[in-house]
Order: sequence, then C-alpha cells, then structure tokens
Amino acid sequence: VPLIQVDLSRKLFERAHDAIGDAIHAAQIEALGIPADDRFQVFHPHDDGELKFDAKYNAVDRRDLILIRVIAVHMYPVATKRAFFEGVVARLSSVDIRREDVLIALTENAFEDWFAGR
Amino acid sequence: VPLIQVDLSRKLFERAHDAIGDAIHAAQIEALGIPADDRFQVFHPHDDGELKFDAKYNAVDRRDLILIRVIAVHMYPVATKRAFFEGVVARLSSVDIRREDVLIALTENAFEDWFAGR
Amino acid sequence: VPLIQVDLSRKLFERAHDAIGDAIHAAQIEALGIPADDRFQVFHPHDDGELKFDAKYNAVDRRDLILIRVIAVHMYPVATKRAFFEGVVARLSSVDIRREDVLIALTENAFEDWFAGR
Repeated sequence: VPLIQVDLSRKLFERAHDAIGDAIHAAQIEALGIPADDRFQVFHPHDDGELKFDAKYNAVDRRDLILIRVIAVHMYPVATKRAFFEGVVARLSSVDIRREDVLIALTENAFEDWFAGR
Repeated sequence: VPLIQVDLSRKLFERAHDAIGDAIHAAQIEALGIPADDRFQVFHPHDDGELKFDAKYNAVDRRDLILIRVIAVHMYPVATKRAFFEGVVARLSSVDIRREDVLIALTENAFEDWFAGR
Repeated sequence: VPLIQVDLSRKLFERAHDAIGDAIHAAQIEALGIPADDRFQVFHPHDDGELKFDAKYNAVDRRDLILIRVIAVHMYPVATKRAFFEGVVARLSSVDIRREDVLIALTENAFEDWFAGR
C-alpha cells in the first residue's frame, strides 16, 4: 500500500486525471514490484492561487506544477526509488506532462503503520 | 498533537463528518492516552474521480474508501498503534462505515517537529 | 525543496493567501538558509466543518486555525527548526494571524526522496 496523493491544477485534473492515475500506478507496479491491484490514489485539483511555486528554481522551466506525494513503507533502496521517479516521469510524458513540471516527495513509515481494511 | 487528515467522498462527508471526527477522536483518547482536548482534524471531501482505489486489493471488498492519515510523535509501541486502528474501525462501524472501507496510514515525527500555538 | 502545505479557512485564504505564502517563504529563507527561489507551497482552503480543533487545548485560545505542514530533508538541528517556527509565527503576525492560531507539523525524509523536475 504505497499511498499516492496528487495535487495539480483543476485544468490538468479535468484533462487527464484518469491517465495520470494510470501512469503513476503503472510506474509503481514496474519499479516497486507491488501487486497490480494495490492502488490507492487521492487527487486534489487546485484553483488559482493555491499552488505557489517558483517557475525557475534550480534552472528548471516550470509551468503547470504537478505534485506527487508518496507514503511508502521504508524498504526500497535508493536506486529503486530513482527508477520509480523516472518511470513516473516517463509515463507522464505520454500524457503530455512535462518532466520539468513534476515534483515528487516520498515519505516513509513502517509495516505496522498501516491498516488497509482488515 | 497527533494530527488527523480524513479524505472521503463528499457524500460520506455530508452524511457524517461530525460523527466521524468524534469517532476517531474517541479512539485516539482511548488507545493513545492523549488529553481529551488534544484534537486537530482536517477533512477533505472529494468529488468523483478524486479517490482512485482498487475495490478488491488483498481480498477486501471496498466500496466507499475513507482514508485517515495520522502524523504523530514517534513514541507508541506497535501494539498501541494496532489498538488505535482497531478502535477507529470499531467506532466508525457505529457510524455505518464498513471496516473494509477504512485505510489508515500513520507517519511519525519528533517532539521538536511541532508548534501548537505557543 | 522543503514542501509546504497550508490548510486554512476559505475566508482567511481569500483575505491573505499571497501574504501568507510570502511570510512562510521568507521565514524559510531566513531560518533554513534555502535559496530564495526554492518555493513549493500548496494551499487548501476549507469550508465549514472541515477543520475540527479544540479551541482551548494546552491553554491556547484558538479561533481560526491555520495548519502548516512541512516536508523537509532530515538535516536541520532542533534550534534551526524552532527558529523557523518562530520566524513563521512572527511574520504571520504582520498579516494579522494570531500566534495562537498557528499549528505547524514537520516531517522529514532524505535527499533521495525527492524529484524536482530533473
């Protein structure tokens, strides 16, 4: 049960929320090796003024930020996390989301920190 | 100051947000032993398409997901966390929320990671 | 890339979201020593019933809660975190936000837990 939260503009949400969800989920299955039905995603569409970011930080040309937060059990090596991030970015590009617009933040917890319906 | 965030369908929010908040808070007081007035809860009602989850993952029959995220200081033994999760589920069942529909994710920080008004 | 999420009443959001964002960002630059253009903030305005809190917990007189969540790399000493919190509170007071109404929760991750556009 990695948990995914996606914050994005309402315009982008309306254009592509299903494709975005599918893209992130496919990257997760591929890179993290989770079961195909282990999917929990929360989308937060945002109106004007709610997403504030610098359009140029670290020499990246940002236009329409999509923020992806992940809570996952502490168990993945650094290389696996990187492969996951790159997988997300690659698959989002096929939904016409630019690499530069992606921000991912992962936080970790432990197995005992989850309850998933039983 | 554990902090509680609840993401749920707008329909469920409108039907029972106060009862849900009370149920989670009562479980917290009972299982975690916090003061009765240590209550901080944020609800996010969601419209169609915003909560994406697999209805069958891990052989659980999910219908109307309620996601409860907790940020708490790292101090509770595993058994205490489990008792808290079970307490939440038990009390939510009296609000007609099915055990199968509950997803809880806890993340931890430290005492120095909080500011609560003074 | 510390990531800031602000949950607040819709009324407060409409009155001052830009000033609040600027205040938190200025405190971050000052206390944490981050680059001036390292800004990523997500605001969630809330309607009635969505923010539930005890108005008196720990002998603090709360009226209009503003919740600030921070995800940051684990690297700041306790004194630096405290200085950041105090900086946020001081700067928000010039936007007429009362110290008592501020709740801050910080959680930490690692350098490898971020992807920021490249």
